Amino acid sequence: MRVVPSMMDDCHAILDILLNSGIFNRTDAECVDQMFNEAFTKPEEDTYRFLSCWEGITLVGFACYGHESLTQDTWDLFWVCVSGATRRKGAGRALLTEVQHRAAQERGRLIVIYTSSTEKYTPARGLYESMGFTRTAVVPDYYADGDDLYIYSKRLAWRES
Amino acid sequence: MRVVPSMMDDCHAILDILLNSGIFNRTDAECVDQMFNEAFTKPEEDTYRFLSCWEGITLVGFACYGHESLTQDTWDLFWVCVSGATRRKGAGRALLTEVQHRAAQERGRLIVIYTSSTEKYTPARGLYESMGFTRTAVVPDYYADGDDLYIYSKRLAWRES
Repeated sequence: MRVVPSMMDDCHAILDILLNSGIFNRTDAECVDQMFNEAFTKPEEDTYRFLSCWEGITLVGFACYGHESLTQDTWDLFWVCVSGATRRKGAGRALLTEVQHRAAQERGRLIVIYTSSTEKYTPARGLYESMGFTRTAVVPDYYADGDDLYIYSKRLAWRES
Repeated sequence: MRVVPSMMDDCHAILDILLNSGIFNRTDAECVDQMFNEAFTKPEEDTYRFLSCWEGITLVGFACYGHESLTQDTWDLFWVCVSGATRRKGAGRALLTEVQHRAAQERGRLIVIYTSSTEKYTPARGLYESMGFTRTAVVPDYYADGDDLYIYSKRLAWRES
């Protein structure tokens, strides 16, 4: 598994992974597509960064993260998704490790992840928890009735006392 | 107090209110300026809506709200600010009432507000609580060390059982 900054050409493979994930839908994919385009057409705004995970010559996953505006060194993992065929092989962990590493290099203090309480996100929540993220907050019925917002957060190591 | 949709010409007065609020800073004002411009130059994206509160011929406050993407009928109050000279005269309450009314008209189910735990936001938190918003979640140290994220939420009346 090799995690590197995404290139513009990665866009189609990233959208394919999302649409075939069984987790995200077309609206999610459109949102990612917009963020991806913004990352490449407005780099001066420096809002979204994308990482691609490669297994040989196959793009098997991606992550999107960035600094949370109006905060002091808080970073947000906006998206992470791994292709169905590649799950349980460490791509998600490799992507999250690299996000933490890069955020810490830019003085990141805290990483937050917003996710859903529903069952299809159980593997993702397991990954976050196994990597030291703590569920710090819940907003009931945020995404829809019965679908709560879970907020995970983790202090980055270089600032840990 | 009269609350109506903002016009493009309101922009300068809105930024003046923010910069003289003693609460928000230049970075916040730049963020609002960007959202304001987006609301008027990209109305098709329908992300941000602005309301202005007038007392006679003076713009005394504003609110910015919108639908939270990727949620089912959850709306977000992004900003609300009232000029220092006008506080305690009901402008904040009038703005929030109108936001709730307009969100409910568009099938809004839930309104969320993200705010800070720090002392300068005490009057704002008091307003939210007096209007039936509940602090449903806290993310410690989100804005900065010692400056937590408080999330308030309220179900809109037309869906209350």
